[in-house]
Amino acid sequence: MCRWLAYSGSPVLIKELLLEPRHSLIDQSLHSRLGAETTNGDRLGIGWYGLGDTPGVFHSVEPAWNDRDLRDLAGPIQSPLLFAHIRASSGSPVQQTNCHPFRHDRWLWMHNGVLRDFPGVKRELVLAVDPSLYPRIEGSTDSEVFFFLALTLGLEDDPPAAVERAVGLIEAVGRRRGVEQPVQMTVATTDGTRVWAFRYSSEGRSRSLFYSTAVSTLRHQYPDNPVLHGLSDETRVIVSEPLGDLAGAWNEVLESSYGVIQEGQDELHPFEPRPPS
Amino acid sequence: MCRWLAYSGSPVLIKELLLEPRHSLIDQSLHSRLGAETTNGDRLGIGWYGLGDTPGVFHSVEPAWNDRDLRDLAGPIQSPLLFAHIRASSGSPVQQTNCHPFRHDRWLWMHNGVLRDFPGVKRELVLAVDPSLYPRIEGSTDSEVFFFLALTLGLEDDPPAAVERAVGLIEAVGRRRGVEQPVQMTVATTDGTRVWAFRYSSEGRSRSLFYSTAVSTLRHQYPDNPVLHGLSDETRVIVSEPLGDLAGAWNEVLESSYGVIQEGQDELHPFEPRPPS
Amino acid sequence: MCRWLAYSGSPVLIKELLLEPRHSLIDQSLHSRLGAETTNGDRLGIGWYGLGDTPGVFHSVEPAWNDRDLRDLAGPIQSPLLFAHIRASSGSPVQQTNCHPFRHDRWLWMHNGVLRDFPGVKRELVLAVDPSLYPRIEGSTDSEVFFFLALTLGLEDDPPAAVERAVGLIEAVGRRRGVEQPVQMTVATTDGTRVWAFRYSSEGRSRSLFYSTAVSTLRHQYPDNPVLHGLSDETRVIVSEPLGDLAGAWNEVLESSYGVIQEGQDELHPFEPRPPS
Amino acid sequence: MCRWLAYSGSPVLIKELLLEPRHSLIDQSLHSRLGAETTNGDRLGIGWYGLGDTPGVFHSVEPAWNDRDLRDLAGPIQSPLLFAHIRASSGSPVQQTNCHPFRHDRWLWMHNGVLRDFPGVKRELVLAVDPSLYPRIEGSTDSEVFFFLALTLGLEDDPPAAVERAVGLIEAVGRRRGVEQPVQMTVATTDGTRVWAFRYSSEGRSRSLFYSTAVSTLRHQYPDNPVLHGLSDETRVIVSEPLGDLAGAWNEVLESSYGVIQEGQDELHPFEPRPPS
Repeated sequence: MCRWLAYSGSPVLIKELLLEPRHSLIDQSLHSRLGAETTNGDRLGIGWYGLGDTPGVFHSVEPAWNDRDLRDLAGPIQSPLLFAHIRASSGSPVQQTNCHPFRHDRWLWMHNGVLRDFPGVKRELVLAVDPSLYPRIEGSTDSEVFFFLALTLGLEDDPPAAVERAVGLIEAVGRRRGVEQPVQMTVATTDGTRVWAFRYSSEGRSRSLFYSTAVSTLRHQYPDNPVLHGLSDETRVIVSEPLGDLAGAWNEVLESSYGVIQEGQDELHPFEPRPPS
Repeated sequence: MCRWLAYSGSPVLIKELLLEPRHSLIDQSLHSRLGAETTNGDRLGIGWYGLGDTPGVFHSVEPAWNDRDLRDLAGPIQSPLLFAHIRASSGSPVQQTNCHPFRHDRWLWMHNGVLRDFPGVKRELVLAVDPSLYPRIEGSTDSEVFFFLALTLGLEDDPPAAVERAVGLIEAVGRRRGVEQPVQMTVATTDGTRVWAFRYSSEGRSRSLFYSTAVSTLRHQYPDNPVLHGLSDETRVIVSEPLGDLAGAWNEVLESSYGVIQEGQDELHPFEPRPPS
Repeated sequence: MCRWLAYSGSPVLIKELLLEPRHSLIDQSLHSRLGAETTNGDRLGIGWYGLGDTPGVFHSVEPAWNDRDLRDLAGPIQSPLLFAHIRASSGSPVQQTNCHPFRHDRWLWMHNGVLRDFPGVKRELVLAVDPSLYPRIEGSTDSEVFFFLALTLGLEDDPPAAVERAVGLIEAVGRRRGVEQPVQMTVATTDGTRVWAFRYSSEGRSRSLFYSTAVSTLRHQYPDNPVLHGLSDETRVIVSEPLGDLAGAWNEVLESSYGVIQEGQDELHPFEPRPPS
Repeated sequence: MCRWLAYSGSPVLIKELLLEPRHSLIDQSLHSRLGAETTNGDRLGIGWYGLGDTPGVFHSVEPAWNDRDLRDLAGPIQSPLLFAHIRASSGSPVQQTNCHPFRHDRWLWMHNGVLRDFPGVKRELVLAVDPSLYPRIEGSTDSEVFFFLALTLGLEDDPPAAVERAVGLIEAVGRRRGVEQPVQMTVATTDGTRVWAFRYSSEGRSRSLFYSTAVSTLRHQYPDNPVLHGLSDETRVIVSEPLGDLAGAWNEVLESSYGVIQEGQDELHPFEPRPPS
């Protein structure tokens, strides 16, 4: 089981977010208290927006809890929008092209979960990817093919609809081949401005997903917490597992739903796969 | 431009073959005197047969000329049949799943050359791979897809016919998409008993390929060379570039032809792509 | 906490030893049931004797349980004497030169444990290494410095005495600097013929160490177990944690003692650090 | 032979500096036109200042000209002060702890050249490092030991004097051991505010070093060059080999001298090793 975190809000130093909090993502990688697999010892990937026209992406080559490179790298990097992902391989080779977050132009994508019996359905799913996008698939994972299906089905125009169509297609292909529960997922995607986060599984028992309570509410509850005063009201974090132990800071995203983090009012909606017609 | 070597004959210590001769494969990797690209600084891969039911495969993670791992590894390994390949990337990510020699069950495959405009033809070629073999494709290179096309088209039964069919298919797909010279190749493949080596290019100017003169002839010519006395009459080496400087030791494989190294008489035949019907 | 295994006896295919048994070393790496740290997700190293004049050494670059390279490599390699080690880093960078087993000429060395406050004592210990050996230290770990101290103090002539002297020196240096329990260790070393295995800690609570019961005894107890019939009477395995669940197969090495595996009668002796005079 | 570049001035996107110019550092790595070794196929390292209290450091794991990671990473990173180094190994293992630029607190250090017969002099040089700094040495290269000698001899207080003392010491130790020309170097170091660059060799034939002409002069000469108009008058680049082909843009640093890039007037001074008293 992988873990991920999406941060949007006041610019933060990456090292403060990933390396310093108790129960940080790095710390979780080592202890992996809620995960399905024994450990999460694979690779860390981060993607963040800053200057320039594309997000930066970095994938470690060491197990996350030994990652000198991240500590060395993260020092001076600040960002208002960051994705971080720790991968526990479920069979695919651990190599750079298989590392989340995946990027396509300005978009980032990360997935915790699995497309079940992927070797059996991969060929048919890959065929459904737009031929003009096909050459951009670089790795061998289910998560990347999922991303390219969503891109094919309109991610850049209407992310929730595109993900619903992609899941509908994956379920249809899988079931035709005898896979009972084809999809298990939490997914986050962003264009650098808004963040969409999805929680869904064919079996209705999806991996956990949490979003942070409004900072203004937390400030009211915890007037003495200095960290909260440095964050704008718009700051949000979405995580596969809560960070820290501030009571009331985290809310579980419901089964079969998705949220949108954006300027102004955030949103929560039900998620329904759309089978191919 | 990559380089490769196929060895079949008296069992040799890998380190003597790869690390010790002047003009060894490692030395060539550094100097790259005949290559098209400036350097060959990528990765070394070796495959060899020994005990057990499958060949061993090792891919270095460092540039070939710094490879401590190979020196450490090769010490005690002896083999009667070895493939070695140094890869100069022409764009694909350098990662383990993209490294020659490729293996499928008892078969090894390595390729020096290119399928031109691979991003443009990849999808159609991958579609032509047998669906039962498709999930075994692990990397993103033209050479691996070429291997799986040959497997699809009968490599395990009739290697020359399968390679001729695969090249015919690649040329047909490429030309339909406007690629003038779709294939440039030297290829070696083996089932652990026989070795087949091919030299061909659509433009008729293929990369170089050499096979060693019969050891008995060399012994006659060079009665004082001790190395030659340790080798059986059956020993053969096929290389992309001659090793050492023993006059008369190397013979160029002709354009559009292939050779078979096997017990008894070796063979040389013309190579003709077979277009799909 | 690291894990290790030393095998001496009938030649075995490495993959059968490391990859196939239940509770194999690879399996242990993932579950790490007895370890002090949460996981053992670092690197696998193996050293083995075969042909040639030095042992082969291989260090994986991926977490042990994802190691395609080992599976690819181990296929055809058979050996009568093998060391395998899975490293859980306790701070040193995970890099090839820091990987067990360490090699010096024909000798291999692996260590599970720690020299406490190594940054504080390293300089003084390194100074005690023979200046002619000093340039051969390649990494930055306590275990490698320990090896070079043992080499300096006579490992090649009298391994038990040399290790006792090295531990005596490390304890003396550590205590002078206020380290209460300077050494925690199980160590295995070999010259390719005999294997020495040590269990010791300054605090008298050393990490576990087990040796296999005589094969002839086991065959008598388990007349129907086919594996036992393929092994010579001389075959022995020493491990940090028992493999498999054959009752009576494993015996714990006592605190502060060492064993010698050799042709003829094996030996067990008490281990006593020898302080520098 | 390695290559390096130090940039100080108007904040630039790293990718524009390293990946886009003709004759960029990456391009030089491939063609290596002036280098002593055949190729420069090792690793790229960068260090840069931004937010936070320490510089960021990134070391690639692939040969520089295949480095997807740098392209992925560099997108959004902008910096007013950057070091970049491409390492051609002359024997030391290629691993992260051996990669330039080296960092100590706020300081960065990179070195092109060699301490001759380093295995012979290493022990004595390492002994001269301040015992409190000794545990911070992480790798095995001559360049890192050189850095720690300079730190020991006052780098943080008076960089030119410290480097002169370090070179004096290295020459004294080397000559005592029969090394005729102990030092060959160009070195750059910075505290994040000023940059010092040194050119020296015991034999008086040092590797090349160039600094850029004042931007205001260049603007006057090339009124139509848009790049020059985006740079502040304070912008300077120091390189082991000129980038681009703008006539008059580069000036060679004289033998046995050093320069200081700083706010206000830059400086050039002679460099004289200071033997230990």
